[in-house]
Amino acid sequence: MDAEIIAVGSEMLTRERVDTNSLYLTGELNNLGVEVVTKCVIGDDRDRLADAVRRALSRTGIVLLSGGLGPTEDDVTREAVAQALDRKLVFHPEIADALEQRFLLMKRKMAEVNKRQAFVIQGADLLPNDRGTAPGQWVEESGGVVVLLPGPPHELKAMFERQCLPRLTRIVPKQAIRTIFFRVTGMPESDLDQLIAPVYKKYENPVTTILAANGDLQIHLRARCATEAEADALLAEVAGPIELLLGDRLYSRNGSPLEVVVGDLLRKNHATVSVAESCTGGMLGERFTSAPGSSDYFVGGFITYSNKMKMELLGVSPEMLEEFGAVSKETAEAMALGARRRTNSTYALSVTGVAGPDAGTKAAPLGAVYVGIADAAGTYVAHRQFIGDRQRIRVFTTQMALDLLRRRITGRVHVDSPKPIVG
Amino acid sequence: MDAEIIAVGSEMLTRERVDTNSLYLTGELNNLGVEVVTKCVIGDDRDRLADAVRRALSRTGIVLLSGGLGPTEDDVTREAVAQALDRKLVFHPEIADALEQRFLLMKRKMAEVNKRQAFVIQGADLLPNDRGTAPGQWVEESGGVVVLLPGPPHELKAMFERQCLPRLTRIVPKQAIRTIFFRVTGMPESDLDQLIAPVYKKYENPVTTILAANGDLQIHLRARCATEAEADALLAEVAGPIELLLGDRLYSRNGSPLEVVVGDLLRKNHATVSVAESCTGGMLGERFTSAPGSSDYFVGGFITYSNKMKMELLGVSPEMLEEFGAVSKETAEAMALGARRRTNSTYALSVTGVAGPDAGTKAAPLGAVYVGIADAAGTYVAHRQFIGDRQRIRVFTTQMALDLLRRRITGRVHVDSPKPIVG
Repeated sequence: MDAEIIAVGSEMLTRERVDTNSLYLTGELNNLGVEVVTKCVIGDDRDRLADAVRRALSRTGIVLLSGGLGPTEDDVTREAVAQALDRKLVFHPEIADALEQRFLLMKRKMAEVNKRQAFVIQGADLLPNDRGTAPGQWVEESGGVVVLLPGPPHELKAMFERQCLPRLTRIVPKQAIRTIFFRVTGMPESDLDQLIAPVYKKYENPVTTILAANGDLQIHLRARCATEAEADALLAEVAGPIELLLGDRLYSRNGSPLEVVVGDLLRKNHATVSVAESCTGGMLGERFTSAPGSSDYFVGGFITYSNKMKMELLGVSPEMLEEFGAVSKETAEAMALGARRRTNSTYALSVTGVAGPDAGTKAAPLGAVYVGIADAAGTYVAHRQFIGDRQRIRVFTTQMALDLLRRRITGRVHVDSPKPIVG
Repeated sequence: MDAEIIAVGSEMLTRERVDTNSLYLTGELNNLGVEVVTKCVIGDDRDRLADAVRRALSRTGIVLLSGGLGPTEDDVTREAVAQALDRKLVFHPEIADALEQRFLLMKRKMAEVNKRQAFVIQGADLLPNDRGTAPGQWVEESGGVVVLLPGPPHELKAMFERQCLPRLTRIVPKQAIRTIFFRVTGMPESDLDQLIAPVYKKYENPVTTILAANGDLQIHLRARCATEAEADALLAEVAGPIELLLGDRLYSRNGSPLEVVVGDLLRKNHATVSVAESCTGGMLGERFTSAPGSSDYFVGGFITYSNKMKMELLGVSPEMLEEFGAVSKETAEAMALGARRRTNSTYALSVTGVAGPDAGTKAAPLGAVYVGIADAAGTYVAHRQFIGDRQRIRVFTTQMALDLLRRRITGRVHVDSPKPIVG
């Protein structure tokens, strides 16, 4: 069974406001096994709203509306739904009386305009609102249902929970829903899709969704079955082969972000890490420390944005900078060694690259990035050529650095020729 | 002229995700005098999307779509719009070649599936995407236009600005729209509104909007008139008194973010800055270096997340840490002095605080933050007590630090008792 959600109100069509009621409603519907297939925001325009309700009901069994139930001329939801269903609006004097009582309780006189809230769509169930003045309405129509809910989130939530959930449970077929949330890094979205599509394409259930952002890939699997056991079995059937295909590119099975996964690995190994950042300017440290409790393993580091700082704070030699340049394998290695030497951390990560907007040089063009790692056994430097703007290159670089550390801790990166740690 | 915005992607119909592209697009359209009358989110369903496009185009002159232009089977926007307009999709080998080149640049082989991105709706203008693989499309149809934009916000913004704005300006009826974009920091949104509402409430034109995010307040004034001169005169009438009321809390008159304003001040004064960060873990450096060209004034710094690092990298004395604690006026001052001494920068900023999730101590509870500044004349330490989660406290702290430096450079902060700079 599918649902559509319509938020009503011109204020949600401005550049500042988003409709958040639909997130709550989506969560509650998904828990019942109902998918939301379309969400809309419609301004305070009766005809347009009536049209949207009519179209939604022609496609889906459940149409939830939020907002537009207030007392003013701008509040058009009642009229629009009545128009869409071709039903009359009926005045209920007992609602008007209750509203008047409510105003008396607040020692205020009710404005005449509030009587608009006493109009109910013919044949609708009234949904009492104990947190505000606007009652909701539940209107069944040719096997489907249109629900009118108030806009203020605390009114909407209370009404949905108390009045709608019990009614929906009666009309929605019973299902169990189970999910898996993988995270992957180090490959483009298209490669990931090509790799795992042969597995997930065979299944309509579970539904598989791939999301890409900032060099990070998320794979959501969601199974709907009659029982939890069946859903878990279906998930396992699809997730197993996907895990095998992904191998060590799969870094999280529960949706944890990379900095948390790496932090947990460090903590488990009683290890610490320090950073030496050039082009990322602190972003790598910021990501490490965004995880609560990161002081267990993150000791600190150096932001060496200039060559002078690379020399003075990390001990990179002027000759090396002269010979190889600041953006080079050699400098990355020297930075990692310097950070480790000065902080005595188990691991040190270094980052140097060309984030732009300057075009860089032939040897180190825009987007060229070196990430170094040093530990007791030696060093390793990874090189990548990114494209995109400054922000993108920097974010991808932190992702690359975190992943290099993850692979080193789990024994998948072998360091080169052990170097003596010298002062 | 009206517009509708359609965001495409099943992931935006989950309980976690909202479409934010429409907020940016709404702002840009409003600037042209175009109102957004409906917004929708549609899942990855070709028929449903085609239907939505058809309906939108029947009601409004401008239909903007975001997302669904990727290379996978889930990306249905091209097909859906072609279906809605009853046009063919044409394969453009030169797009496929350009994609292949892009992959070569990254030293990767292009997956076959990417060729889906080389299909263009018959009669459409191609909109180049220099930040990603998916080109956009501009399709005119019976006096209206359907625009296909990529989903990732940085790709969408660049494409809209460079490719769509010039084209829209040609088809939208001309109005003179002039805007002023003030930025303010160091006060709560409600105080700002209370302060300036008596001025702006008197005017329906210009429209005044206040936005608050991350300790930063934006004031947008937008005047629409027949001529630019009229609009400018109206703006000046409202902006003048607002500027007077804001005083030195107003840091930008053109919308530049605080890190850019501070960077420009440093550059103008031939000054440099370094940082010593504890609770922000690199975020302050990251903000400084997010501005292109920041190497002109940002030399680098220290992430001293542990007491040990505060002592070893910055020379904070163990006795002081013992006596006053890591989160204290004294430690903030010592950190700033240490960073300046070791980098020889004109200014050094230090940050120490309790970002949580630990509750902190009685002397330094959760949200307590000290920001220090050191320069040739002496030191100053500011203290604030923030509320909120870890991320909020950290972001507010960087805002506070940048603003302290701004006020110091512009002579509004007086440093205490000059300290000798000793090794």
